[in-house]
Amino acid sequence: MSQTAYDELTSLYTRLHRFAHLQSLAFWDQAANMPPRGNEARAAALAEIGALLHRMRTEPRLKSLIAQAEGESLDDTQRANLREIRRDWRSTNALPESLVEKKTLAGARCEHAWRQQRPANDWAGFLENFREVLRLGREEAKLLADDSGQRPYDALLDRFEPGMTCAQLDRLFGDLRQWLPGLIERAQQRQAKDKLVEPVGPFPVAAQRALSHDIMRLLDFDFDAGRLDESTHPFSGGVPEDVRLTTRYREHDLLPSLMGTIHETGHARYEQNLPRALLGQPVGQARSMGLHESQSLSFEMQLGSHPAFAKLVSPLLTKHLGAQPAFEPENLHRLLTRVTPGHIRVDADECTYPAHVILRYEIERSLIEGEIEAEDIPALWDEKMRTLLGVDTRGNFKDGPLQDVHWPEGLFGYFPCYTLGALYAAQWFAAIRRGTPDLDARIAAGDLKPVFDWLRDNIWGQASRWTTDELAVRASGEPLNAAHFKAHLESRYLA
Amino acid sequence: MSQTAYDELTSLYTRLHRFAHLQSLAFWDQAANMPPRGNEARAAALAEIGALLHRMRTEPRLKSLIAQAEGESLDDTQRANLREIRRDWRSTNALPESLVEKKTLAGARCEHAWRQQRPANDWAGFLENFREVLRLGREEAKLLADDSGQRPYDALLDRFEPGMTCAQLDRLFGDLRQWLPGLIERAQQRQAKDKLVEPVGPFPVAAQRALSHDIMRLLDFDFDAGRLDESTHPFSGGVPEDVRLTTRYREHDLLPSLMGTIHETGHARYEQNLPRALLGQPVGQARSMGLHESQSLSFEMQLGSHPAFAKLVSPLLTKHLGAQPAFEPENLHRLLTRVTPGHIRVDADECTYPAHVILRYEIERSLIEGEIEAEDIPALWDEKMRTLLGVDTRGNFKDGPLQDVHWPEGLFGYFPCYTLGALYAAQWFAAIRRGTPDLDARIAAGDLKPVFDWLRDNIWGQASRWTTDELAVRASGEPLNAAHFKAHLESRYLA
Repeated sequence: MSQTAYDELTSLYTRLHRFAHLQSLAFWDQAANMPPRGNEARAAALAEIGALLHRMRTEPRLKSLIAQAEGESLDDTQRANLREIRRDWRSTNALPESLVEKKTLAGARCEHAWRQQRPANDWAGFLENFREVLRLGREEAKLLADDSGQRPYDALLDRFEPGMTCAQLDRLFGDLRQWLPGLIERAQQRQAKDKLVEPVGPFPVAAQRALSHDIMRLLDFDFDAGRLDESTHPFSGGVPEDVRLTTRYREHDLLPSLMGTIHETGHARYEQNLPRALLGQPVGQARSMGLHESQSLSFEMQLGSHPAFAKLVSPLLTKHLGAQPAFEPENLHRLLTRVTPGHIRVDADECTYPAHVILRYEIERSLIEGEIEAEDIPALWDEKMRTLLGVDTRGNFKDGPLQDVHWPEGLFGYFPCYTLGALYAAQWFAAIRRGTPDLDARIAAGDLKPVFDWLRDNIWGQASRWTTDELAVRASGEPLNAAHFKAHLESRYLA
Repeated sequence: MSQTAYDELTSLYTRLHRFAHLQSLAFWDQAANMPPRGNEARAAALAEIGALLHRMRTEPRLKSLIAQAEGESLDDTQRANLREIRRDWRSTNALPESLVEKKTLAGARCEHAWRQQRPANDWAGFLENFREVLRLGREEAKLLADDSGQRPYDALLDRFEPGMTCAQLDRLFGDLRQWLPGLIERAQQRQAKDKLVEPVGPFPVAAQRALSHDIMRLLDFDFDAGRLDESTHPFSGGVPEDVRLTTRYREHDLLPSLMGTIHETGHARYEQNLPRALLGQPVGQARSMGLHESQSLSFEMQLGSHPAFAKLVSPLLTKHLGAQPAFEPENLHRLLTRVTPGHIRVDADECTYPAHVILRYEIERSLIEGEIEAEDIPALWDEKMRTLLGVDTRGNFKDGPLQDVHWPEGLFGYFPCYTLGALYAAQWFAAIRRGTPDLDARIAAGDLKPVFDWLRDNIWGQASRWTTDELAVRASGEPLNAAHFKAHLESRYLA
């Protein structure tokens, strides 16, 4: 029997998956192991495989193969795979190679200079490079939008969160804007009289490492199919068959790296539990960046910051670092749920985090759609930070619009995923709670199986079989509904 | 100006180098880091890049590009590069892909079964798979020989040691056969009354790790361009720009892993000091496997087992493991130069090692050239072990012909390189000594610069610019001459 067009496409994606394995390993190694003088050769090797993957995904015959496969007899999973193949093909082929190269160069230049400009608070210097990054981002959005018929910002968003639109984000974030500042204020008032005991270091790195491994075992990370190492910027890398997490230990700051490890373990378990039979195919990949973040935040916020979970972590802290008052479960839970409006997104708690995201979304959407220019960012930043968090950012660029790597790199349309993840995570836990009414007691008893089973069945094992809305409905009975996030915050911070 | 054929060839080899970087990293990671469940995906990724590299090196237009480049105006280094490109092309293109695949499969099957057959001493079981491996090895040798006009075994040898022939090996090894057994006997007699103090463990792995790093610093390993990690079978991997060494620590056996690290550091410094401007081109690669081994043995045997070097290692042992009588320099040197005929090649000392190699060379040459069959190996093995080392091997296959991975894998023609390396290393040190008459005092004073400078200028920095004979003449005034090895052993063991 001759090979169908669909078979040819799946063979191509299997080969792409294998080459991407090597690429992913090389990125992980670059961050976790590589000595400095290896960088030039590594960059050249990564550029070479990047170009190969691009060539494979832009082979001219793919267009007709996809068209041909549409007419073939396919089952539901194959049909979903073809849908994802078409999405991948469209996003790769909508941009001329010259634009991709210009974007890569401009982003690398801007990001490289930004590393010095941020500590120097040099907004003017940053603007010089960033104008070109923005110009190319707009060009990219316009080309993608022309190709797909979407709004420019929607076209960027679609690469990370398929199906999501500005219209929907405006509704979701508009709602949050209504009640979030008030909730933050009330939560702070309630916490004002709480007695907090801070952990007293130093905490030896070897002990933190052993503690992290224990926490990951508690969270069912499969160490036969992954590792934990160290890098300056923690991430979840590798491949679904062999997930490489990294974290960073600081001798005088214990909890951030611990919560970072819990966060990355959520990403890792999604990857480790994608359906084996579909690996390599687009339908076998994690559904979206928002869904991915819903897993890391299910682990870090829903579970990791749950009062009952503090009872599980407390004895591990004592085991590895000795007993101290700060490690008492109640105090630990208070430390992990402290609400403090601040300048920095990555340091934000779960109540104030969405404010950082909403402001970035509003600014970058206006930037991409040409309503504002790069020069307008600081004033808008300050105005929104005041309204949303009551924080004054005037003149402080380094803790303001210079704080994130996304814009220097030309990454527009990604920020919303962080908060979409938080909303979805609350929705998943509401569903888990409906199925397991004694969930809090189960968590307190160290029985996390109801959580992991639900996530495996409803999220991890579904990969990209469904659109995001379909997935949400199948998993929780409704599409994304921010009411669950509101209810979660009210119950944790105001009840 | 249009691109010359030579330029096109160098571009291809630059791309091959970049892809090989990813391949090499993935192999290293597989041995040093990879969790077990990652293996299937890794094997698939390695097969994919292996096939890509093979396709690139067998592109039909290469033949005419090489012919065209021959007629272009090239400088000496380019001419040497073209010579090496032709050698690479010939060895890759002389074999039909079907034979390469059959060899890979048969070797993998035989090697996999051998892992159980060796501990079970199962020679009969091994033979069943090995007959096919040998048949394919003969076919490979014949095809390579038909293509190049060489003798079959010479054609295999040429892939590892270009220019080396059976005729020359028979002369070199025939000479060794004359004097080596007598020298071993006399050395043993002289050592019979030596008092030896064995090191008393356990030696904690963390301390051994720190010790290994100190020894590598003493040997000028560039930690900005490489790392030391751990794997079951120590090796030197990675790329010249980022060398990845591995070693293995045993809590109750200190010296083998220490000497192993010194050995691999020799390989590593060759790679780290290949000329930067030629990296990626065949002319920029290490000259041969024998030359490579001449560097690891220059470090391990010439330097590492030198009486003055023991004075440098002794304080490092004490620093990391505490003082004990075994670490006194004189005792340490005696431990490192103990002559003991035994069954196992990889455990052999520098006096008995060549005997293990000569016997393997004689047997595999006869196997490849059809003078004997696989069934004849055990009797020949026993006869040669008796003659060369006085060791009885009857019935002991697991410590006899089943001890090495080379034959199960179908790797014929490699063994001679180990002893060629030992001969070259002695020749290099004789030359270094002529230029630095107070070499022993310099080593004792911790001044290893004369050694490293000579090796860098004469070996490392020359890469594959010259044929091996030319390189030896330029470096030491003569082609390979086993008299230096004999003089070295006599001076170290009989003086």
